[in-house]
Amino acid sequence: MQEKILLKWATQKQLTVPTLLLQHYAEMGLKENELIALLQVQTYIEAGNQFPTPDLISERMTLTASECAELLGRLVRRGFLALERKSDEQGIVYECYSLEPLWIKLIELLKGETLRAREEDRHEQEG
Amino acid sequence: MQEKILLKWATQKQLTVPTLLLQHYAEMGLKENELIALLQVQTYIEAGNQFPTPDLISERMTLTASECAELLGRLVRRGFLALERKSDEQGIVYECYSLEPLWIKLIELLKGETLRAREEDRHEQEG
Amino acid sequence: MQEKILLKWATQKQLTVPTLLLQHYAEMGLKENELIALLQVQTYIEAGNQFPTPDLISERMTLTASECAELLGRLVRRGFLALERKSDEQGIVYECYSLEPLWIKLIELLKGETLRAREEDRHEQEG
Amino acid sequence: MQEKILLKWATQKQLTVPTLLLQHYAEMGLKENELIALLQVQTYIEAGNQFPTPDLISERMTLTASECAELLGRLVRRGFLALERKSDEQGIVYECYSLEPLWIKLIELLKGETLRAREEDRHEQEG
Repeated sequence: MQEKILLKWATQKQLTVPTLLLQHYAEMGLKENELIALLQVQTYIEAGNQFPTPDLISERMTLTASECAELLGRLVRRGFLALERKSDEQGIVYECYSLEPLWIKLIELLKGETLRAREEDRHEQEG
Repeated sequence: MQEKILLKWATQKQLTVPTLLLQHYAEMGLKENELIALLQVQTYIEAGNQFPTPDLISERMTLTASECAELLGRLVRRGFLALERKSDEQGIVYECYSLEPLWIKLIELLKGETLRAREEDRHEQEG
Repeated sequence: MQEKILLKWATQKQLTVPTLLLQHYAEMGLKENELIALLQVQTYIEAGNQFPTPDLISERMTLTASECAELLGRLVRRGFLALERKSDEQGIVYECYSLEPLWIKLIELLKGETLRAREEDRHEQEG
Repeated sequence: MQEKILLKWATQKQLTVPTLLLQHYAEMGLKENELIALLQVQTYIEAGNQFPTPDLISERMTLTASECAELLGRLVRRGFLALERKSDEQGIVYECYSLEPLWIKLIELLKGETLRAREEDRHEQEG
């Protein structure tokens, strides 16, 4: 039996989370359950499901499906998560999530920080 | 300035999170802020700080330092996080966190699941 | 322009490589270009292409397409890479690579090591 | 025994490799064994050993220690790997490797590509 678990462990996907996100999500206005929901969405996307339902997300969290639906809607409205329409080879339109807005927000925050650090340096030098 | 941010991004560490943990933490009895706290501890350990203070954890979360102290203590008492004593080359004793108990709990849960799945198979075959 | 590169960097996938593989591939009988070829196959699989051609692999390596074809064939014959047949929803059969054999070989090697370490312990105790 | 291997697997570090590096190392002038050597250096750095010897690198590769010494020296001379001097709290100077030059070279290559793509667009529009 352990053979099976070992192989399950070895062949599972690893989600890679930038430490800059772990360091700055709170400053960006995200709560812990919102961050986890975003990571769950990313896990589903990487597994090939680009538009996981609130039900699917809820199965892996301490929130109910309706709480997940509300939370995901709020993340879209606040610009942390995008809902995009794509069309496949047969022209059939489907919806998918994208985390690009999350990374753009994080990059913007880092720019602001770098700018402030630079200005503080200048002020110190100018005395 | 963007040059600096690009390099900061490229040289940051990535935290790798097993998707099995993201799938099962709620079933294991962990809340979202407890999971994030564990991931923060791991990030600090991998950056060389094996015993981050509640203050350090709190800086990166929406919780206060005293809430973090309480949360970390609870994770240790419930057996998700271990507090170990090691001694360095000069014989000086220091404390460090270990996430080994978390992985053992996850492995135990997977074993239970595999066992249940096998028994259900047998029952079905036996009719 | 750097904005574009920053976003490209932030949204790229990261390939996670178990350090146990990096430590033991040579002992397992793999050469460096074979290891890289396996990692390239995994990268394509994770990006949704489960059966990358030797041409595609070759574009990212210092080997020609025919050298890649030969190398991949050798990895399959030596049991590091599996070639599987699956069928999609419409019943159309397609081929795909799986790295499961690689992980099984690595696990077998770790078992052998653990066994040897245990026997040496026993011999030492028995003196 | 499998219990031990499962835990070993679960607690091992994962090395994260940007897919952009896997896509472009050959174009950057790196051979497969040079790329693996750089990844081995990174693995050691992340495990706390910032200046692994050619012997240590060699143990995990198909190359001899002297081939590794030569290869690492060449990577430093060609600007893929930096050898830095730092001093610890007691003022003792020590040497360590840094992969920053590798990331800078990769970023430069991506810039060149983006620039070329943009110019081609302009030429097409000007027709």
